Amino acid sequence: MTEAIPGHHLVLGGARSGKSAYAEREALAVPGASRWIYIATGQAHDAEMAERIAHHRAHRDARWRTVEAPLGLADVIAAYDAAGTVVLVDCLTLWLSNALAVDTWAAERDALLAVLPGCTARVLLVSNEVGSGIVPLGELSRVFVDEAGRLHQALAALCPRVSLIVAGLPLSLK
Amino acid sequence: MTEAIPGHHLVLGGARSGKSAYAEREALAVPGASRWIYIATGQAHDAEMAERIAHHRAHRDARWRTVEAPLGLADVIAAYDAAGTVVLVDCLTLWLSNALAVDTWAAERDALLAVLPGCTARVLLVSNEVGSGIVPLGELSRVFVDEAGRLHQALAALCPRVSLIVAGLPLSLK
Amino acid sequence: MTEAIPGHHLVLGGARSGKSAYAEREALAVPGASRWIYIATGQAHDAEMAERIAHHRAHRDARWRTVEAPLGLADVIAAYDAAGTVVLVDCLTLWLSNALAVDTWAAERDALLAVLPGCTARVLLVSNEVGSGIVPLGELSRVFVDEAGRLHQALAALCPRVSLIVAGLPLSLK
Repeated sequence: MTEAIPGHHLVLGGARSGKSAYAEREALAVPGASRWIYIATGQAHDAEMAERIAHHRAHRDARWRTVEAPLGLADVIAAYDAAGTVVLVDCLTLWLSNALAVDTWAAERDALLAVLPGCTARVLLVSNEVGSGIVPLGELSRVFVDEAGRLHQALAALCPRVSLIVAGLPLSLK
Repeated sequence: MTEAIPGHHLVLGGARSGKSAYAEREALAVPGASRWIYIATGQAHDAEMAERIAHHRAHRDARWRTVEAPLGLADVIAAYDAAGTVVLVDCLTLWLSNALAVDTWAAERDALLAVLPGCTARVLLVSNEVGSGIVPLGELSRVFVDEAGRLHQALAALCPRVSLIVAGLPLSLK
Repeated sequence: MTEAIPGHHLVLGGARSGKSAYAEREALAVPGASRWIYIATGQAHDAEMAERIAHHRAHRDARWRTVEAPLGLADVIAAYDAAGTVVLVDCLTLWLSNALAVDTWAAERDALLAVLPGCTARVLLVSNEVGSGIVPLGELSRVFVDEAGRLHQALAALCPRVSLIVAGLPLSLK
């Protein structure tokens, strides 16, 4: 198991748990930071999704520079890696969906796990807890839940801070 | 953000987590209380639901006065608001379902958020955590999960106590 | 409510939360233990499930003796009950599914709740949190979620230790 990386923070929570807002507040409060990169992994496949993305962007603090990265997450993080930079990835489960859809998940995941330990930027990773309900029938749902769970475990081992957000409030897991 | 209200308590938990039993015990243990109002939001649409409601009512302590309020929740709380009174609402997600079905959710929600800060009664609000699994396809499920999550965040900001119940045991979130 | 049993430990978590790996580590670290019994409740109904079971078994420490017990759980626990023995049951929700399918759930559950208090072996019980998402339509899903939740509450009252695993990390509930 890799040694914990100073600063990186895994922020987990259910749908509408307030996990993104929590992570944004934490990111803006990082002492000594001078640049904030918001990596949005969502893709607008329909009007409802486009509205959600626009809603989120409109409510974001002006210090954020938003970068869209549905795939190739590790490369985008590396491109913005620098001292004084805070990188927020929102969210890992959308990125997982994107990668499963084009069958590049294993490469995407391995690249993320490889790039994080060397980052001098502080990286906050927001992800959806999806494994605490009944898993719907169908192999895709099971693969998605399995891969999300395995990823969360791997990242939780890497990150020195892990939080679970419930109703906007953080439970510290690590 | 409104200031926290002394006493109000948001009790979250999954299905069959023991959240109602926990909230009932907490309510009956409030020091100085002399009246206990149980606001039941469930409606018996079929035999299974009727049986659940009857089961809950039969197992409730005799000090409770049960009031049925599928809609108009804020008005019912206000009608019973008095010093020495403990009001338990069980549960918010059924009330949300009821309001979504008749398209009065925004008004119901705003009225609840408006009435709580002025209540002298202590209000315990039981609600279902529904956002930690895969959200089923269909716009209604997504709206339900979104609105439940937003409501929990708004109430968690208002209430001085927030608990998450797992297997009958409370995790204190606030 | 029965008195707490020294040593027994209920380990809850969502799908791929790392609950089994956590329970295995805890079990192998029990001081003074000399025998480790792994009670696997899963049945391989299809190739995917067979692969999962084989994957789990291949990754298990050599000290484990694996016993398959899709049903009759209480009797199997009793058969291996002895001082110095650690019994890990993985997992209760698969066993619940098996028993619901053949309509013997009430007897299975009552037998487990009856056998645990007298066990001198230390028993670790791994189970899936399934109640924190939308419950899919259909009576079987509702019965499954209800019975899992009720079982967790009953066991949490019996066991001196209860943990919720999220991303491989334990939250202590008791």
